[in-house]
Amino acid sequence: MEKNRLEAFSDGVLAIIITIMVLELKVPKESGAAALKPLFPVFLSYVLSFLYVGIYWNNHHHLFQSTKQVSAGVLWANLNLLFWLSLFPFCAGWMGENNAAPIPTALYGVVLLMAGVAYYILQCTIIAQQGKGSLLAKALGNDWKGKSSPFVYLLAIPLAFVNPWISSGLYTCVAMMWLIPDRRIERVLETRES
Amino acid sequence: MEKNRLEAFSDGVLAIIITIMVLELKVPKESGAAALKPLFPVFLSYVLSFLYVGIYWNNHHHLFQSTKQVSAGVLWANLNLLFWLSLFPFCAGWMGENNAAPIPTALYGVVLLMAGVAYYILQCTIIAQQGKGSLLAKALGNDWKGKSSPFVYLLAIPLAFVNPWISSGLYTCVAMMWLIPDRRIERVLETRES
Amino acid sequence: MEKNRLEAFSDGVLAIIITIMVLELKVPKESGAAALKPLFPVFLSYVLSFLYVGIYWNNHHHLFQSTKQVSAGVLWANLNLLFWLSLFPFCAGWMGENNAAPIPTALYGVVLLMAGVAYYILQCTIIAQQGKGSLLAKALGNDWKGKSSPFVYLLAIPLAFVNPWISSGLYTCVAMMWLIPDRRIERVLETRES
Amino acid sequence: MEKNRLEAFSDGVLAIIITIMVLELKVPKESGAAALKPLFPVFLSYVLSFLYVGIYWNNHHHLFQSTKQVSAGVLWANLNLLFWLSLFPFCAGWMGENNAAPIPTALYGVVLLMAGVAYYILQCTIIAQQGKGSLLAKALGNDWKGKSSPFVYLLAIPLAFVNPWISSGLYTCVAMMWLIPDRRIERVLETRES
Repeated sequence: MEKNRLEAFSDGVLAIIITIMVLELKVPKESGAAALKPLFPVFLSYVLSFLYVGIYWNNHHHLFQSTKQVSAGVLWANLNLLFWLSLFPFCAGWMGENNAAPIPTALYGVVLLMAGVAYYILQCTIIAQQGKGSLLAKALGNDWKGKSSPFVYLLAIPLAFVNPWISSGLYTCVAMMWLIPDRRIERVLETRES
Repeated sequence: MEKNRLEAFSDGVLAIIITIMVLELKVPKESGAAALKPLFPVFLSYVLSFLYVGIYWNNHHHLFQSTKQVSAGVLWANLNLLFWLSLFPFCAGWMGENNAAPIPTALYGVVLLMAGVAYYILQCTIIAQQGKGSLLAKALGNDWKGKSSPFVYLLAIPLAFVNPWISSGLYTCVAMMWLIPDRRIERVLETRES
Repeated sequence: MEKNRLEAFSDGVLAIIITIMVLELKVPKESGAAALKPLFPVFLSYVLSFLYVGIYWNNHHHLFQSTKQVSAGVLWANLNLLFWLSLFPFCAGWMGENNAAPIPTALYGVVLLMAGVAYYILQCTIIAQQGKGSLLAKALGNDWKGKSSPFVYLLAIPLAFVNPWISSGLYTCVAMMWLIPDRRIERVLETRES
Repeated sequence: MEKNRLEAFSDGVLAIIITIMVLELKVPKESGAAALKPLFPVFLSYVLSFLYVGIYWNNHHHLFQSTKQVSAGVLWANLNLLFWLSLFPFCAGWMGENNAAPIPTALYGVVLLMAGVAYYILQCTIIAQQGKGSLLAKALGNDWKGKSSPFVYLLAIPLAFVNPWISSGLYTCVAMMWLIPDRRIERVLETRES
């Protein structure tokens, strides 16, 4: 199997996920500035989810750069990832419309966690397919970002019942961690580790 | 005609079908866990339909791997398949929101059957175009999955009026049958047949 | 400019138009067969519009097969066509939900007419760009289908105020005319003309 | 990184933005011509937004024609642009449904401005990546359109509180300025400047 169609299909699904999330920003009936106020948390949740989908698209791009052939296992691992990402609009909408209430915020974390795990499975499937001396395994290095993110989500999910804003803050921190260019951070870490 | 644009267009339609199905999971107004309960059957129906669209995408991918040129007949047979698949969101939503009531469950089966038949027609059109010694015909072998699935649907449709959960179970079984990697099952069958 | 991105963008827009039309088929709240009855005209209007988008996609495909370079004029003529096609979901929904009332049926015809004219403009722009001995001009021949369709629409629009079903019938006839494989009809016509 | 996937993803997002804008044109329940009247400003706002997305797609196309490799910076600058463009359906819908009331019209201008700035950042990122003797920098020339548009938006935003139709008119003028083929205008300007 060629990777082109898998990439095109994933790009399509990600592009649609990003744009249907914006549909949760429902056009208000009034024209005053007050009508925008209840939309503000929905907007924040949209920005966060947009960042996450952007990060996943970016990483997905890198993941398949070192691959040429795609096995049936990789294909289903990819669909599994797309499934969890497809739940982002629902969770982002629920969290945003309820002003980050505990349960919606926790559920958002659960979906982030499941997407993170699905991404990790996809990564392992590709590495396993490439065999020893896998290019992807080398490129990933110790993969501290991929390995630490799920633990942050696991911490944030129960904290949503204490204070949902702590959880939202933690979700944002993970997004920021992925946004900041890799090299600089890795150098910092190398210095600390040495 | 080249097959690239047909693949790209089909990928686009399938990607959108998958993601508009998730729109049936309507964001509840309350933030409690109880608000999620009525969404559970909608979610199950979404998972099942996601699997089906994933399987069709996967098989569609295989179907066109052995093809290079696309005739007008193949093009319309493909649009026919996309038409039936485009009815998945409606049927999945109706079945899910009515907690698998008899008529919606039967209609879901009818659309699964029509999509299966449309897929079979597409397959035959491609084989006919390739002529004798068709690569696709060889690759398909006895095609027991493709041939048995419609009969399971035909059985499940009337059974929806007895107990819709039996039908849903049968739809799930067909999906599982397609999900499990081919070779292993085929080997098992070869052993049984010999 | 290369034509690949124009084709990919048009395919994306057409794929989305097809699938958002199906959103007009709103999931009913009841689970009985009676709940499907009011959806029947919406379904018919969806089938007709699906056919039209399919035909446009098919023809669009042919149009760009003979082209290699795309000028700014072609690009805007293409966006003009996509604009009119993007109004199909609205018109199809309005016609379907009002059981083919006169004004919605006439409006559907107006949009069909405008899309037909936009397609004709796009075709002329491509032929003009290719210059004398244009491959597309040769491939089109006398283009009786393209030239007669607008007149049928012009006839059907006022007839919607007499009986909307006559108009719907005429719209269906035009679709059928494009669906039936070209060669056979052209041969018939050649025989008649000679 | 290759530019193909970035282009495909951007095309997907733009195609979806264009088509979800049309969803704001909600199918009326009545079938009379009077039912269309309140939709007229929504339609005008759709036409304007369609033009803008078309112009952005067109320009985006040109931007990446001179590029071969895509850095992480370009990728995020592109996602930033797509983010602001994804707010078009919301703003167009709000402005259209409120008959161009002051606040929605101003907000539309803010999003146009932010998209313009995001586009400018993307352009600068690409030029910086290409280094001295950048092809894109040469192709852009003095880029008077790109540089003047933000100032028109900055003027139009406060004017929305005086008369929203002046602002809408200014937004339309900017769109027209981009639509009219470049060369002719540039020649005119060259003559004036010399």
